[in-house]
This record gives sequence, C-alpha cells and structure tokens, in this order.
Amino acid sequence: MSKLLVVGSVAFDQIETPFSKSGKIMGGAANYICLAASQFKVPMAVVSIVGDDYPQDFLNYLIDRGIDTSGIEVVKDGKSFFWQGRYHNDMNLRDTLNTELNVLGNFTPIVPPAFLNAEVLMLGNLHPQVQLDVLNQMTCRPKMVVMDTMNYWMTHTWDLLMKVISQVDVLTINDSEARELTREFSLVKAAQRIMEMGVKYVVIKKGEHGALLFHGHKVFFAPALPLEEVFEPTGAGDTFAGGIVGYLAKTEDYSFENLKRAIVHGANLASFCIERFGTERLLHLSHNEVITRLLQFRDLTQFDIQLGR
Amino acid sequence: MSKLLVVGSVAFDQIETPFSKSGKIMGGAANYICLAASQFKVPMAVVSIVGDDYPQDFLNYLIDRGIDTSGIEVVKDGKSFFWQGRYHNDMNLRDTLNTELNVLGNFTPIVPPAFLNAEVLMLGNLHPQVQLDVLNQMTCRPKMVVMDTMNYWMTHTWDLLMKVISQVDVLTINDSEARELTREFSLVKAAQRIMEMGVKYVVIKKGEHGALLFHGHKVFFAPALPLEEVFEPTGAGDTFAGGIVGYLAKTEDYSFENLKRAIVHGANLASFCIERFGTERLLHLSHNEVITRLLQFRDLTQFDIQLGR
Repeated sequence: MSKLLVVGSVAFDQIETPFSKSGKIMGGAANYICLAASQFKVPMAVVSIVGDDYPQDFLNYLIDRGIDTSGIEVVKDGKSFFWQGRYHNDMNLRDTLNTELNVLGNFTPIVPPAFLNAEVLMLGNLHPQVQLDVLNQMTCRPKMVVMDTMNYWMTHTWDLLMKVISQVDVLTINDSEARELTREFSLVKAAQRIMEMGVKYVVIKKGEHGALLFHGHKVFFAPALPLEEVFEPTGAGDTFAGGIVGYLAKTEDYSFENLKRAIVHGANLASFCIERFGTERLLHLSHNEVITRLLQFRDLTQFDIQLGR
Repeated sequence: MSKLLVVGSVAFDQIETPFSKSGKIMGGAANYICLAASQFKVPMAVVSIVGDDYPQDFLNYLIDRGIDTSGIEVVKDGKSFFWQGRYHNDMNLRDTLNTELNVLGNFTPIVPPAFLNAEVLMLGNLHPQVQLDVLNQMTCRPKMVVMDTMNYWMTHTWDLLMKVISQVDVLTINDSEARELTREFSLVKAAQRIMEMGVKYVVIKKGEHGALLFHGHKVFFAPALPLEEVFEPTGAGDTFAGGIVGYLAKTEDYSFENLKRAIVHGANLASFCIERFGTERLLHLSHNEVITRLLQFRDLTQFDIQLGR
C-alpha cells in the first residue's frame, strides 16, 4: 500500500436545508477526503490548519482512523475556517451565507517528514499557492497527484492555478467550473482543453448526474446512485475525491482501467455523504454497507450486450 | 421476430438553433420511432395521419425501410401537423414558436389488419384517447406495450391518461414530467408512484444526463454518450423509444435484463439523432456506425470491480 498525503481545509460548517439546520459541525474538504479515503485503510496524513477553537473530538475522528494529523497546525488564539450555507428545495442550488477564512488566510503548509515521499498526493481545494507549496516539498514526485479546485481561484489567481494544473495528474472539477476554466460549453471539449493544460486525467463532476473521466480520447462515466432522499450534498465532491485517492493508494495501480474503478468507489462513497448533515454519515459507515452499495452500483450500470460483428 | 406496431405523429418540423435554421422538415414522433426501430429490421407498421401536403418522398423513407405505411391516413385537402421551435445556446431549453394540430386534431386511428396481433406496440406521444383506440383494436393483447406521453395530457386529459397508463407495460417519460405526474421530486419515488399506476417498467428520460429504468425495486441507468457537439435534440426521446421497441421486437425477450439492453440500444441511437437537424442523421445511419458506437457505449460504462467479501 502506498502512502497517501491529503492537503485541504479543516473547518466548521453550518448548513441549512428547507427542512433542518445543523449546528457548527465538522467540515472542510480535508475532513471529507480523509474520512472517505480511510475506508481503504492506507497509511495517510493530512496537512491543514485550524484555530484552537477547533475541538479535539473532531481531530480524534481522524486519529481514531489511523490518520496522521501532525500536519494540522493549531494556531493559538486563532479561529478555524468557517462556512455557512443554505440549500434550496432543489439541492443543486445553494446560497453561501458566510465565509470566514480566519487562520486559513495565512497558511504555510508543512508536510510531516514521514509523508514527504507519499506516492499519492491529494491537493484539496485551496489557494493554488498552498497546493504548490505542498507539491514542492515532496522529496520524490508522487506517482499520482490529484487536485481539486473551484471557480474562485480562476478569477483571483489564474496564473498560479495554471502553474499547479500543469503539474498534476488528475484534476477533479465541477461541470460549470470546467466550462468556466476553458470557455467551452461541451464537456468533451472542456476536458480536452484541460488535458492540454498538462493534466493526464480529467474528472468532471456533475453532482446528481454523475461524473465523467477523460484520458486522451477515452471516456468513462459513473452515475450517481439514484436515492429516494438527498438530505444535503455538502462534501459530496470531496468524498468522491477521497474515495478515488484512497482506492489508488490502496491498489497502487495508476492505469486508466484502475482509475475507472477508483471513480466508481468515489461515487459510491459520495452517495452516503449526502444522506446526512456534513460528515455524519461517513463517521458511521461500515465496510459492509460500502460493499453492499457497490453491488447496487454494479447492478445499476452493468449490462451484457453481445456485439456479433 | 415479432411484429412491431407504432402509433404517433407524422409531421412537419421547423427548427432554429442559435447557429442554423431548418426548413420544413420531416418530423413527428412516429418518424423518429420508425427510423430508429428500422435498424433492427423487424416487420413494422405505423398508424398516423397526414394532410395531402405531406410529401410522398417523406413516406418513401419509411417504405424503403420495409415499413408498412398503409395505416397512415392521408386527408384530402388536409394540412399535416406542424411544430416550430427554437433552441437556446443551452440545448436543454427551447421555445415552441408554433404548433398547428391540423389533421391530427381529428384522428381516428385504424390499425392495418396484418398488425392487429403485433407483439410489440409503441404508443407514441398523442392524445390518450388515440392511444386507447389503438390498444382496444388489438385482437391479442401485445406482449409489450410501450407508451410515451407529455405534460400537456396531464393538464388536459388526466382521467384518460390514467386509463392508458394503467394498461401499458412501459412508460417513457421526461424527468420533469415524471415529477409533474406524481408530485414527487425524487425520481426514485416518482418511478414508484408510476408503477403504482399500473406500469411494470418506468423509463425516466433525463436528456443529456441519460435515462433510468425502474422495475420493482430494481434500477438501471444508461448515460447519454458525451458528444463534442450537440446540433439539436429534437426527436432524441422518440429515437430512444424507437430503439427500445425495435430491439424488443427483434429479440422477443421482455425480461428486465433485456430491457436494460434495449435501453442501451435506445440511448445509442438517440446519440446519433442529435448530431443533425431532425431525422437527417437517422436517414443516413449505417449498421456499422451503430455497432461502433455501441462499443463506445460499453467502454463508457463498463468496469470490473472484484468484490471480495
């Protein structure tokens, strides 16, 4: 098993849906990524920053799963990153009510020495400079660098963003953000433009409509599992990415065929995330539940057509 | 091979996109259904109505494919059904500019005698009374009755619509229309409600986001093929349905497993439809092209995960 290093936000989220409100709960990309990846039981560390207002209990959820949290800097008298949002009846729509960067505004990441040679590196959505700083610290170039980003960095740090993108293997990005990044409406063309930026694999996330994996002229599609109820979708994209990197680190196979499997595992884990507030469902998720749903995933998508030519 | 009977509109369409305009071209659900189903070379007839303004050339496209058009009534001095629409940059959005029912407003369908015992019956989107009239004429209950409908009939002919729905095996319906029909936002719940109306298989069409097949508690999903360009999507849903019934008539297997294959064939054919105006692409579509793209479909969706428990 290879080592997995994750960098991303560790934060408080406060979420409202038309039916319910969460308090200040465990949030941030790195938490979702780590909890999802921990299903694969690979050696893993996380690099992030919090204030001393961040509960030890939340960190313990990671530590209990064997995750090295020594790379999470705790800033004395600092406040943790905070995001507050409200979902509409259509869960594809949400309003951000509040974003407080707090300690994340001044973040100099330090990779724990034992993970400077991690084989899989997950650069969660963050300032591209922070992503670069982590990448530059690695003593060996990881076998697989996966990066997530968002439209904010396209608007504010374009050149830095292009610099990181040109150095990663996999970019995961929303459909609307892929369009914004490339000014192409067709997702096929958008993926081609992104590959021209230097990325080997492009994963376009379409929320409830699944995800597309592009590599050269190859395409693979994983649907989202159709669920009776979506509680709220915060963190689903990060959970998806966590499943991908966890599976890759576990299997040490970075081929397109294995990326397909990784995408399916990611989509499978994401389907749990949206069943409860925030990370709640991921914190109570058994291996058996994961496997059972993976079988549903297989039934959902697999068919047998004889193509006699 | 079983016989296939298709009822639906045969019409003129006039289509605008942000980039191009068609003239008055061959349109109507029955034309798309027949052209798609003709790929499977099953004995097939179509029941419809046109005015004597409808070109013989258009009918010949069906006749050349061995389709029995004796059930298409030609009304002397009548005008054929006409639909005019304009697509936006986002091809999921369109405005109807003009709808002239013309002869379709007074349509009493007559099934050709040789097809009164057809095993597969496709009730294309039409007034539910017309759909019922056809169903009632059948001397043997077909092995598979597939029905398509739209929101207009929910608003104007609810009771009749429920009567037809209760007598069919498969309902194909758009996602938004499934929600309207059932007042359920979740498509899983909507499909369950529709099955409670008496349908065995529910196919929910999500346009570029693929289609879901529900049967009891089983679900199957077929994506739409990601294309570089969508020219315009008129008739894609009917082409999809045509692929389904053509394949079912060809294989004479009405199991869930075979319905899955039928859905894949339907989605495959629909991916061609949207490459040109109206029926243009379907009129010039070789068997080899269909098979080649079916292989792409397989590559797009098939994965191999070992689920060691």
